[in-house]
Amino acid sequence: MIRAGIIGGTGYTGVELLRLLVGHPEVELVAISSRTEKGKAVSDIFPSLRGRLDLSFCDPEESALDQCDVVFAATPNGVAMTHAQSLLDSDTCFIDLSADFRIKDPEIWREWYGMDHACPELIGQAVYGLPEINREQIVGAKLVANPGCYPTAVTLGFTPLLENNLVEKSSLIADAKSGVSGAGRGAAVGTLMAETADSFKAYGVNGHRHLPEIRQTLSETAGATVGLTFVPHLVPMIRGIEATLYARLTDTTIDLTALYQERFKSEPFVDVMSSGSLPETRSVRGSNQVRISCFRPQGGDIAVIIVVEDNLVKGAAGQAVQNMNLMFGFNETTGLMNLALWP
Amino acid sequence: MIRAGIIGGTGYTGVELLRLLVGHPEVELVAISSRTEKGKAVSDIFPSLRGRLDLSFCDPEESALDQCDVVFAATPNGVAMTHAQSLLDSDTCFIDLSADFRIKDPEIWREWYGMDHACPELIGQAVYGLPEINREQIVGAKLVANPGCYPTAVTLGFTPLLENNLVEKSSLIADAKSGVSGAGRGAAVGTLMAETADSFKAYGVNGHRHLPEIRQTLSETAGATVGLTFVPHLVPMIRGIEATLYARLTDTTIDLTALYQERFKSEPFVDVMSSGSLPETRSVRGSNQVRISCFRPQGGDIAVIIVVEDNLVKGAAGQAVQNMNLMFGFNETTGLMNLALWP
Amino acid sequence: MIRAGIIGGTGYTGVELLRLLVGHPEVELVAISSRTEKGKAVSDIFPSLRGRLDLSFCDPEESALDQCDVVFAATPNGVAMTHAQSLLDSDTCFIDLSADFRIKDPEIWREWYGMDHACPELIGQAVYGLPEINREQIVGAKLVANPGCYPTAVTLGFTPLLENNLVEKSSLIADAKSGVSGAGRGAAVGTLMAETADSFKAYGVNGHRHLPEIRQTLSETAGATVGLTFVPHLVPMIRGIEATLYARLTDTTIDLTALYQERFKSEPFVDVMSSGSLPETRSVRGSNQVRISCFRPQGGDIAVIIVVEDNLVKGAAGQAVQNMNLMFGFNETTGLMNLALWP
Amino acid sequence: MIRAGIIGGTGYTGVELLRLLVGHPEVELVAISSRTEKGKAVSDIFPSLRGRLDLSFCDPEESALDQCDVVFAATPNGVAMTHAQSLLDSDTCFIDLSADFRIKDPEIWREWYGMDHACPELIGQAVYGLPEINREQIVGAKLVANPGCYPTAVTLGFTPLLENNLVEKSSLIADAKSGVSGAGRGAAVGTLMAETADSFKAYGVNGHRHLPEIRQTLSETAGATVGLTFVPHLVPMIRGIEATLYARLTDTTIDLTALYQERFKSEPFVDVMSSGSLPETRSVRGSNQVRISCFRPQGGDIAVIIVVEDNLVKGAAGQAVQNMNLMFGFNETTGLMNLALWP
Repeated sequence: MIRAGIIGGTGYTGVELLRLLVGHPEVELVAISSRTEKGKAVSDIFPSLRGRLDLSFCDPEESALDQCDVVFAATPNGVAMTHAQSLLDSDTCFIDLSADFRIKDPEIWREWYGMDHACPELIGQAVYGLPEINREQIVGAKLVANPGCYPTAVTLGFTPLLENNLVEKSSLIADAKSGVSGAGRGAAVGTLMAETADSFKAYGVNGHRHLPEIRQTLSETAGATVGLTFVPHLVPMIRGIEATLYARLTDTTIDLTALYQERFKSEPFVDVMSSGSLPETRSVRGSNQVRISCFRPQGGDIAVIIVVEDNLVKGAAGQAVQNMNLMFGFNETTGLMNLALWP
Repeated sequence: MIRAGIIGGTGYTGVELLRLLVGHPEVELVAISSRTEKGKAVSDIFPSLRGRLDLSFCDPEESALDQCDVVFAATPNGVAMTHAQSLLDSDTCFIDLSADFRIKDPEIWREWYGMDHACPELIGQAVYGLPEINREQIVGAKLVANPGCYPTAVTLGFTPLLENNLVEKSSLIADAKSGVSGAGRGAAVGTLMAETADSFKAYGVNGHRHLPEIRQTLSETAGATVGLTFVPHLVPMIRGIEATLYARLTDTTIDLTALYQERFKSEPFVDVMSSGSLPETRSVRGSNQVRISCFRPQGGDIAVIIVVEDNLVKGAAGQAVQNMNLMFGFNETTGLMNLALWP
Repeated sequence: MIRAGIIGGTGYTGVELLRLLVGHPEVELVAISSRTEKGKAVSDIFPSLRGRLDLSFCDPEESALDQCDVVFAATPNGVAMTHAQSLLDSDTCFIDLSADFRIKDPEIWREWYGMDHACPELIGQAVYGLPEINREQIVGAKLVANPGCYPTAVTLGFTPLLENNLVEKSSLIADAKSGVSGAGRGAAVGTLMAETADSFKAYGVNGHRHLPEIRQTLSETAGATVGLTFVPHLVPMIRGIEATLYARLTDTTIDLTALYQERFKSEPFVDVMSSGSLPETRSVRGSNQVRISCFRPQGGDIAVIIVVEDNLVKGAAGQAVQNMNLMFGFNETTGLMNLALWP
Repeated sequence: MIRAGIIGGTGYTGVELLRLLVGHPEVELVAISSRTEKGKAVSDIFPSLRGRLDLSFCDPEESALDQCDVVFAATPNGVAMTHAQSLLDSDTCFIDLSADFRIKDPEIWREWYGMDHACPELIGQAVYGLPEINREQIVGAKLVANPGCYPTAVTLGFTPLLENNLVEKSSLIADAKSGVSGAGRGAAVGTLMAETADSFKAYGVNGHRHLPEIRQTLSETAGATVGLTFVPHLVPMIRGIEATLYARLTDTTIDLTALYQERFKSEPFVDVMSSGSLPETRSVRGSNQVRISCFRPQGGDIAVIIVVEDNLVKGAAGQAVQNMNLMFGFNETTGLMNLALWP
């Protein structure tokens, strides 16, 4: 049994962490902070937790967090980096669900996030928490940068192609679609139900913050800078990400489905379906599963890889728990075996 | 570890039973029947189960069902009653999620369900499986009539008022609203997304099959025939039932919230909220919880009781598992502690 | 051709007014004000108007409004009352879509709206703009209080019963449901898509501002104070209100459908359906139509009246245009003949 | 005033035609056929038309259709081709909203539609009814093949690039998304609300029937066979298509937005937005408008063109009315000026 805390527990990744950690047999939740809601019972804000979690939001500066074995940051970008050193000093493992430690180059971070990094000296210690690519480093990590929701889907989808040098690296295309919970729980006209229901749109076409993150990981895998066009879209649904990936094959003899099944055969949370199957986001709603299907339409040279995940689980809180499991030597799937809600 | 089977596993209550039973530590799922899909892998129909359930649909006549400790019927009305005697003969407990054993009077059953009852002699053995009202009988039952989705919400909501003889019994009103999964998984124009999304309507105003079921239970509680107006509505959402109940108080000095909290204080799945709180169906999405709030607007003599549940969990499959837990002496909450998905 | 202006054009009733007035053959839109967006092109905020409306938001104090023949207020409560005198002084007709002039008694207004009325002396001049009840007064009015969305549906639904003294007046019940556009276009966590989609809830049970407005009109019709329990609910859809009304009949021999058809036979925007029919909100989506069905379930003494409308059209902007048509002697249906979007 | 008829009026394109034609000042609707609903009042099936259309469905063989000036086919594929010769013989103009006359090569038609063409000799007479590309031929046509919903969006989006030879023709990618009304009004499990709401998926990745149609038009424009990867997706909304198009530019100096604005400057129904703007499907909900935005992310060589339309209006019934207007010499926009519903 380890002691866990959460900084910034009032957003959607925060409440999803709560859902997963309340049901985790190895974890005792001891502190959840929120500057805006401090003093309030957590279950007053999130009634789904009534009767199951008897904590109130505390001040983020409160000492309880330092006494945790692990602390998760579910804060807006720019906050976690101000807590990292102090937590590491008190020997607390730190899993940051925000973007603060994802980008290796602090210049690129500044360019895309619009602020100076508060502790560039710690970036090098941070392990990018995508277990399917980085499992060994995560096991020994003290500071984990939990990947973004889009990057998890897009990176997993392109990895087998790039690892095997099967596609033109200069013209990858990721057409990604997300449910509205990805936009967060902040009050905003743009994500009101009356503005987003029964409609569909692209956004961030000229540059979304997940682009440099995806490009960084894919380039490492490819051993060369990849060219990536990334277009996110907003889907009138609550949860789920679907990424339809396009790449031009340099070898059209490859059996894509077999390649992917081999690559992910030991992965507990990656399910490669047969090529005729079409993964739906609802097949992973509420679960930590990723499902992938591979296509080569009309037998041409364009590979179409389709990836679905729940943006709040494998794309955020579930992956963070998976990382925690690895860091503390628990079974990797502990607390993450809930099946998707269907329908 | 008991052996469980399901008759008719291709509908929404069937797949919800699968979700709950796959995660139940005391249950081994050994057989699932479907006349239309027999031979197909269950996870081909329900990909959310891929990697977690390795069964194919069998023929309903197959002997595997008789060898189960418990069989659930998740069939259309009129099917379960043809299986009951044979299962009871082989000492298999039988939990019927359809309506076949809910109505005590076979004449009333025929009137509302349009067919003769196949085994009227068994109706008397059937225990109405609403644990909050009938727990002791369920513990010793071999044949359980699992309540309908609306009846669960409406009955729980009116019970404390009727038990204490606090309202005019002749003019109860239940304005109930259900998500579309309540209409089942059958192909029908009326429940297409293009027909039901972004719209709201009442249906069955002149008489819905759940009316006699609710009236039967409430009349038993009241010790007299109650007068009930029941109007169901279709909500453009997948899961969830909300019932807004109206009754004229004969005693306006009563503290309704205190009454309800006392009545349900030992119930693991009934949460009585403070009167200012407004229960949302999403607070129970995917969980077996019921939430209730009590109001007396403007201090008048009309009690307004609001009840929410997930129609597929507490309104169907979750309640069936709760009944199974009681029948087999497991902890009543085993396998039912999943928290609601929020958001 | 008359000159029309709008005060506060950035909310949902504002943009709906724009949609209807742009298509109205007798109206030239000359000014739309918005304090927050002044200077911006209207079609930048509402791209659905691109190419069809070449106006920018002006300051509400701008003189253009005084030179209009008619001005609509689509402002938050408390704003229109500060403009009324000046508009009337410049002989401009004023149609207020907010609540400022709906309540006859300024004390009751203060109690429910939490502020003193700015011009109690004008309240008497204001005509309540529900044409089906008040047509003659509207024709000659200079100041019209456009009814609320719920009050339009609930009032029309109860009126024939009360006019004919057919029900117990002390225990009327209105269980009403609205799409989220009724909550307005303000940024708020509570109406985010991730908070409201796939869920259903009651709200305002202890007292909603539309209660005194409905009670006032119904009591006038009944010739006595009515007792009304009004429970509004939030439906995960954009537009539409459904009201299910319950009343105890004092005369059960009456043919309700015939009564309603007779009452509304000359009304261009009220469609009384046969009792077997179930009105859906989508049948009026985007149109000024109201549809009503009448039931007496199980032949008992409870009348169930079901009313649907589009909250933004007949419940707001469409009714305002209908009032304008009456005030200026146009055909009452001019500019309001668009059919509902189906599906 | 011309006389119009519809063959197959019970699907979504049929009822959308009804909505538009009932409001069209130059058209008298005289006959609507339906084999399954014949004899029933149209407004019983589509209550949105109550009080506005007093017709019953007739038998498709009925003579009334031959006496029309124009007949629209809103039938499943394979039906319209059996009516074409007889209608042309009686000098009736025929606008086919199904796919029967879209594909020039009857072999390709057979391959994708699985049946022999009933009148290959008429295919040559059929004009592809995309006015922005084919206006002159439509003006003189007697038989119009109304384009598919996806083809309208994708073709308009790629046309300026191909007309000007600005992109690699071998690797066009169209990632398209449609609301569920595109799947039609037939009863099917796959399009139930409980199956499609709150979820997102690709479909038809290995080959969708709209692929050869799009490829045919684009190849004509390009003067060479184009290579196109087309992946359609299902969006949990009722109406709307968004197509995100990707092409590799051979000339990166071109100002895409200027090019598109010039190309479509005289088109009443194509709105090219500035590149920073992101078209949403709701901005065209219920209207015949198409909106397009052009991007070149990170200044690279990939053009991203985003197109939105209402699949039932510009993607079907609205375009058919636009074609009718051209064929009969009416103003092209007559009856098509309704603004989008927003919100």
